[in-house]
Amino acid sequence: MQRQFETELRELKNRILAMGGLVEQAIEKSTLILQTRDPVTVTQVKAIERKINEENMAIDNICLEILARLSPVAADLRLILAIIKINTDLERMGDQAMNISYNVDHYHEDGEVTMKLNLPSMAVLVKNMVREALDAFMKDDIVLAEKVLQSDDAVDQFKNNVFNKMVEYMKSHPDRIESALDMILIARNLERMADHATNIAEDVIFACTGEDVRHGVGKAAREGQEKPN
Amino acid sequence: MQRQFETELRELKNRILAMGGLVEQAIEKSTLILQTRDPVTVTQVKAIERKINEENMAIDNICLEILARLSPVAADLRLILAIIKINTDLERMGDQAMNISYNVDHYHEDGEVTMKLNLPSMAVLVKNMVREALDAFMKDDIVLAEKVLQSDDAVDQFKNNVFNKMVEYMKSHPDRIESALDMILIARNLERMADHATNIAEDVIFACTGEDVRHGVGKAAREGQEKPN
Repeated sequence: MQRQFETELRELKNRILAMGGLVEQAIEKSTLILQTRDPVTVTQVKAIERKINEENMAIDNICLEILARLSPVAADLRLILAIIKINTDLERMGDQAMNISYNVDHYHEDGEVTMKLNLPSMAVLVKNMVREALDAFMKDDIVLAEKVLQSDDAVDQFKNNVFNKMVEYMKSHPDRIESALDMILIARNLERMADHATNIAEDVIFACTGEDVRHGVGKAAREGQEKPN
Repeated sequence: MQRQFETELRELKNRILAMGGLVEQAIEKSTLILQTRDPVTVTQVKAIERKINEENMAIDNICLEILARLSPVAADLRLILAIIKINTDLERMGDQAMNISYNVDHYHEDGEVTMKLNLPSMAVLVKNMVREALDAFMKDDIVLAEKVLQSDDAVDQFKNNVFNKMVEYMKSHPDRIESALDMILIARNLERMADHATNIAEDVIFACTGEDVRHGVGKAAREGQEKPN
């Protein structure tokens, strides 16, 4: 049974990895819209998000079925529970990508501001966090998972920077308030994706070690930096 | 064993209910800060959030332990998995309450605007959704869970209304942009809490019926209303 379980687990992990690939694509394409304002890309993000949702439900079903049929314990059980949570976080990241692409109508109202903020660089940071969190998951790499937890600070700083710059911009350009608000909201969408990536990293640490690091010093410190929200 | 399992499940459900009570308190107190700007209340929200986090970890541990020891199947297994997810959603609501209270420094910079927006009424809507979602959970009440899913629309409308009003306000009061932004962000925090309540309702339906309603028509319709995000 253990061998069969291992085969099924490997398949399941590969599916999570593939779902992570879809999330990376969704991040890439949704932020590409910032530069291109291309409605085709919006349709693509929608299609990717639909696939993510389908995978989300399929993976949950497989986990339920494995739990019922094989009743795993100890590290194997922790891994299945981690997969259930990681699955949820990846699905929510898809929702965030959709939120970014929803606002497409406002983009490029002020291309100069968009350029200055460098949101695509923020998106690259977030995408790397997702990739590293899933690498850590695939390789049971706690050190890499810890690195993901630390990367969250840079994303928070990026978000705060966008917030402060846009507040100043709105004060001097009250006619451009909607566009500036869009930038603030997009930065927040990206930051929420980064939060989901840190959740995944925490789940990886839990699956590997049995240690629950969610509300420990690391997380408290990160939460402290959330202000202003 | 079934009897023992039922006793343990009842205890677990009561703990989730108590955690929901803490979340309701957190919503109430964090939005009270809007009116009172009382730093004591901020400390109270912090303490409640800490309790929520402790419960979050304790409940996850109990679920893991029950799965390992009793290997439940079918409806019992679905219920445990639903509890794991509900537990996560309640914890994230605590984070949102904290986010609201973080911004306390800006509150009352413009009491008139705060009054006009009626955010406390929005908070009551959200609190009711949490209570009804957990009532549905305790009583296996699918009809009530469906009602929670529908309530989400009213919260979204509230959020959009706050957004639109504050955009207009910022245009005519560029010196009050930070305060207006706070209102937008608080409305979004509340709306995210409502999203978590709908997640709980979906988990209740899944636990009761085995039917996964997450990405069905209902959810798609709700997601469609998210714009502008």
